[in-house]
Amino acid sequence: MQIGILGSGIVGRTLGSALVRQGHDVALGSRTPDRPNGRHWGAGARGAVHVGSYADAIRGADLVINATPGLVSLSVVGELDPGALDGVVLLDVANTLDFSAGMPPTVSGSADDSLAERIQRALPGARVVKALNTMTAAVMVEPGLLEGHHTVFVSGNAADAKALVTGLLAGFGWPAEDIFDLGALETARATEALMPLWLRIWGAIGTPVFNVAVVR
Amino acid sequence: MQIGILGSGIVGRTLGSALVRQGHDVALGSRTPDRPNGRHWGAGARGAVHVGSYADAIRGADLVINATPGLVSLSVVGELDPGALDGVVLLDVANTLDFSAGMPPTVSGSADDSLAERIQRALPGARVVKALNTMTAAVMVEPGLLEGHHTVFVSGNAADAKALVTGLLAGFGWPAEDIFDLGALETARATEALMPLWLRIWGAIGTPVFNVAVVR
Repeated sequence: MQIGILGSGIVGRTLGSALVRQGHDVALGSRTPDRPNGRHWGAGARGAVHVGSYADAIRGADLVINATPGLVSLSVVGELDPGALDGVVLLDVANTLDFSAGMPPTVSGSADDSLAERIQRALPGARVVKALNTMTAAVMVEPGLLEGHHTVFVSGNAADAKALVTGLLAGFGWPAEDIFDLGALETARATEALMPLWLRIWGAIGTPVFNVAVVR
Repeated sequence: MQIGILGSGIVGRTLGSALVRQGHDVALGSRTPDRPNGRHWGAGARGAVHVGSYADAIRGADLVINATPGLVSLSVVGELDPGALDGVVLLDVANTLDFSAGMPPTVSGSADDSLAERIQRALPGARVVKALNTMTAAVMVEPGLLEGHHTVFVSGNAADAKALVTGLLAGFGWPAEDIFDLGALETARATEALMPLWLRIWGAIGTPVFNVAVVR
């Protein structure tokens, strides 16, 4: 699959490396593709990796992943041709964490909206799916880092788009029973709202390498 | 221990029955103690159970539990003598769920405050602890209903108050490793903010009998 990733931070690079290892053709989009971050990553990864502008990254992609920091995601998406992702699945993994006052970050959100829905409104032709936003990047691509079962939530309006994302998750090693279809895209409000608790748990145990599980 | 419970709904009655079974002396406080709800419960439970007004319920209590609906908790607490709970541990298990528009309820909250902190400000001499607010009543008092490990979060400013609550949780059957001390009372903002996700999970699986686990 040809996959374009918006964002060249730790999340974008971690997802990109894992997807390249699976044989996907990955293009990493950055606001500053010539900075050392992007160059280093592109040079170190095996497989077909390209680092370029956001427009470069999404060109011809079967799947686009938003891995930009949540507070700038709408600005990044706003730079794209509004029709450029018509019919394309966009997996949004971002959270609107505000690091401007240092650590821990604060969460900027609303009970009546979500970043995922805002992205959907900015790109009406894209098929937006929210997933993986409730854990740190290392766990996203290697759930076996943690002991036993834990949960990845999936929110989206299009069943086939969710199926494509579910296949991607399976490729990362997520067992089918740990992939939790929460419902329509508006349920992303609920997973984005997990951030305050997620940050407190991180603070209490001293590491972001954990996840939550739904236990029945 | 002498335990006063504010609230005679399903949460108050479930907690009360479990505490009576453990041999505690339980007084259930209700706005309408003569209604069938309270009378029936008092008649059916074994052990020392009393159903009375809120003021009756907290008199002489070693521990008070707020099990009123979150949207009325501050009004209930406001009816008490502000000094009546000086030095007493108050365990707040409530969430500000708004059922006025039907099911599922909406969540009324703020990122910069919590119900637990508001109760603490209304009763400055009480030692408020937040716990058990992230699950349905049946799971609160019988964690073994679910398979394997799952988590109960505890937030509070006073270590000895948290220790008393932790002892109570152990009495319900919570293993020590599943009791998660999240930190000061302000961390209740984070567990109260779990409600939107909790409600969506309930909607997706069709039952509130589940819990979340922190997996490391």
